[in-house]
Amino acid sequence: MKKIIKVHPSDNVAIIATKSGINKNSPIEGGVTAKNNIPFNQKIALENLAKNQAIIRYGVPIGYAKESIQQGEWVNENSMYIHKTIPLTREIANQLKYENHYRFKDSPNVQTDTFQGYLNADGTVGTKNILAINVTVQCVKGVVDQAIEQIRKEILPKYPNVDDVVQLNHVYGCGVAIHADNAEIPKRTIRNLADNPNFGNEKLVVALGCEKFIPEDAFQVTAEDSENLVVLQECNGYAEMIDEIIYKAEQILKHLNKRSRQTLPVSNLIIGLQCGGSDAFSGMTANPAIGYAADLFVQQGAKVMFSEVTEVRDAAEILLKRIRTTELRMKLIQELTWYDNYLAHSHVDRAENPSPGNKKGGLSTIIEKAMGSIAKSGTAEIIDVLSPGEKIKKSGMTYAATPASDFVCGTQQLASGMTLEVFSTGRGTPYNLEQCPVIKVATNTKLAEKWADIIDFDAGTILDHKTTLEEAGKELYRLMIAVASGEIKTKAEQHKIYNDLAIFNPAPIT
Amino acid sequence: MKKIIKVHPSDNVAIIATKSGINKNSPIEGGVTAKNNIPFNQKIALENLAKNQAIIRYGVPIGYAKESIQQGEWVNENSMYIHKTIPLTREIANQLKYENHYRFKDSPNVQTDTFQGYLNADGTVGTKNILAINVTVQCVKGVVDQAIEQIRKEILPKYPNVDDVVQLNHVYGCGVAIHADNAEIPKRTIRNLADNPNFGNEKLVVALGCEKFIPEDAFQVTAEDSENLVVLQECNGYAEMIDEIIYKAEQILKHLNKRSRQTLPVSNLIIGLQCGGSDAFSGMTANPAIGYAADLFVQQGAKVMFSEVTEVRDAAEILLKRIRTTELRMKLIQELTWYDNYLAHSHVDRAENPSPGNKKGGLSTIIEKAMGSIAKSGTAEIIDVLSPGEKIKKSGMTYAATPASDFVCGTQQLASGMTLEVFSTGRGTPYNLEQCPVIKVATNTKLAEKWADIIDFDAGTILDHKTTLEEAGKELYRLMIAVASGEIKTKAEQHKIYNDLAIFNPAPIT
Repeated sequence: MKKIIKVHPSDNVAIIATKSGINKNSPIEGGVTAKNNIPFNQKIALENLAKNQAIIRYGVPIGYAKESIQQGEWVNENSMYIHKTIPLTREIANQLKYENHYRFKDSPNVQTDTFQGYLNADGTVGTKNILAINVTVQCVKGVVDQAIEQIRKEILPKYPNVDDVVQLNHVYGCGVAIHADNAEIPKRTIRNLADNPNFGNEKLVVALGCEKFIPEDAFQVTAEDSENLVVLQECNGYAEMIDEIIYKAEQILKHLNKRSRQTLPVSNLIIGLQCGGSDAFSGMTANPAIGYAADLFVQQGAKVMFSEVTEVRDAAEILLKRIRTTELRMKLIQELTWYDNYLAHSHVDRAENPSPGNKKGGLSTIIEKAMGSIAKSGTAEIIDVLSPGEKIKKSGMTYAATPASDFVCGTQQLASGMTLEVFSTGRGTPYNLEQCPVIKVATNTKLAEKWADIIDFDAGTILDHKTTLEEAGKELYRLMIAVASGEIKTKAEQHKIYNDLAIFNPAPIT
Repeated sequence: MKKIIKVHPSDNVAIIATKSGINKNSPIEGGVTAKNNIPFNQKIALENLAKNQAIIRYGVPIGYAKESIQQGEWVNENSMYIHKTIPLTREIANQLKYENHYRFKDSPNVQTDTFQGYLNADGTVGTKNILAINVTVQCVKGVVDQAIEQIRKEILPKYPNVDDVVQLNHVYGCGVAIHADNAEIPKRTIRNLADNPNFGNEKLVVALGCEKFIPEDAFQVTAEDSENLVVLQECNGYAEMIDEIIYKAEQILKHLNKRSRQTLPVSNLIIGLQCGGSDAFSGMTANPAIGYAADLFVQQGAKVMFSEVTEVRDAAEILLKRIRTTELRMKLIQELTWYDNYLAHSHVDRAENPSPGNKKGGLSTIIEKAMGSIAKSGTAEIIDVLSPGEKIKKSGMTYAATPASDFVCGTQQLASGMTLEVFSTGRGTPYNLEQCPVIKVATNTKLAEKWADIIDFDAGTILDHKTTLEEAGKELYRLMIAVASGEIKTKAEQHKIYNDLAIFNPAPIT
């Protein structure tokens, strides 16, 4: 097994790949000798570096040396500093040459592969069959919880084709500045969440009756749609609230129970890509494997999105070169710049990311993290850019702007229509969603073995040369189809581990 | 029954108190004839009003006539406009004369009344006996949920003196700008929530291991406190996570099970006051009754707080006059001004509150709402002002600055140490907390009858002259003591209706 891994020929640092780390004075391949004890997944200097010299990984500067660094020394977040990002401008958008590195650019797009999905009346396709109970405001949450508990116990068993009843819970709806700048983001997110294909074009809404985010604005449901709406203030007390929710839920369960899986082209999938608890291997194993699978899905005509603004901000130029038109490049610039300003207002920037765990995992700067993060998106052309919570529209690779926070990103991707998520992790997180399957990919075998009952796919095998990137990518592609088809349940799904929805609300509350 | 209610001699509008409303052309007491059909709890003009003339209720202008208004016309949010608030300055703080209108100013403070509470080692006193599981980050939420389900089923029955096991869930902890301006607010809130007296000075913390808000910063718990800390990334997979949480939870349950209620002075209570889904009666029935009870608790030396910045902003001068020192007045001004700026940044102001439901309930402007809202705080001197999530320190009436959003306000008050909440509502909301009892007070009998299985106390009897304000206040005071003592369970508690915690985070996320 290799002791260190260098990603790009011009790199002047490499990653320690020996699980137990490397001891001081150990000779390492390439004639370098370790000057410190260096833990697993941390960086070692491959040559002497002068103060202020660029530290190169992935062929790009991930930071600059604070002091001179000797060959063989441990290089980490304390060894380097980064510059402020350069503001993105129309000039940059115009200047950059479009580059087509798509892995399958010489093979035609194909739509041959299929999966077992739920076809909806509006033509969308789900991977689950869920009754979603939408709420206009947090106030109703406790009542809906109690109704759901009763539905699960007494009603759901009568409708075996339905997977679950889920509240699309949030803390918005009232006590918010509903006309403030950016309030459209949480409103659009809640609105679009309701339309996720996994809910079968059915809609049950529970409202309070005095909230700001009224059912008509939130879900295009009015008092006339009485079979889809329960307004608690119109009920005669708690018992009637529960009865009414359960009664209306059961009418919808009857419809949902008629849904069944059928063979459909893979092009009908809407796939979200995410990473969380990343480490130095994320960009070498899990994320490139996800990128390979993503490229295969793009070739099949599926809709695929990647996200997380602060984690792609430092790779902006690389992404811009993957976009063909200045107009779409400007949309990306607009989303990234919006976030620059959002953070600057509170006197911080994208360097608030990475986390302490990322650093322990060998990711020293947000630039290094970004270079690994974008590997998830594969090599295809970026054909669209979404604002947070907008619905995905096009086949191919879309950039859906969201915060990098795992649970917020997942919620926003669900609002964009995601029916299957792939999530890479190096440090390990039990993150999972109730609304669509989430496949967890470990960046290293150490984690995959330690968390064997949580991790679904080990991409660490790429490090050990047990699989090639191509093999791992194809295997992951097949696993994704099996999970989307309901043939394989993810580990987290088996344990019913679910995170809360957490919608992105950059507007103030009142 | 009276058909209309005028609050102050100088008022030029009154409230329709007939449940069925008033028909056009009906004569009403005082020689006024209705010019429109006017619903229950809406306002009627008592005299002709010129364009731009002040519309007076509670003896203060609640708005200005958009057009001329005739005697007997329906007056609502469409009839009036309001001005921008005047910035609060040190000059104002210096100028205003201190006014002591305390209802019991001529009777000495007494500490004679008692309740049945749980005395903690640090001297604080709880009203419940709860095992709180603190989390550093949302990522761990799904695992903690599963552990709690198992604890409730298999372990809790062995410890009958413990009321419940509750996760102090939040969406903070990672993917946040932890050094941003105002990040101290969510951090302080999470930190202080853990110390709520209802958790018996015990602390179980579940962390992920790579998050930004590390256990030491969040809860002063380090790896050395291994009996209080579970770090999921250090566990060998899901099964071990669950085992470890359950094992450590049980050790704490053994301690908590030894707690029992004892007779203690009422001065040990920490009471939060709140209103939500308010209507035109809030300021005439429920809130004054709560204010009376609050005055009684102040007389007994209890710690009492009221909150909701946007709902007191227009009553700032009234509150400032209840504060003795310029220094403390400046603290209040600082909190209100902070909120002015927070809203102004997004181009809104406190007028984003009231809600559509408030307006249907006859509250036309935020000024009218504020005048009703502050009635909750009674008449005592305001002896302290807290920033959001700060712990309450002093006996007497404290202003604890929080957003007005019901669930956010409740969460912030819990962080300030609240062990009992009183919540008034006119439109009706099932709002309730798992962490401390919430007594729901209806502003009108119509709601109290309609929601008989949710409302705990009907203050509408004051309208019908069935009780006086003093009688209602004293009855509520006794109910509060009975609920704090565990002798009466609130209606919502009987149904186990619980809202989510929703911490206030004005800082950006990453």
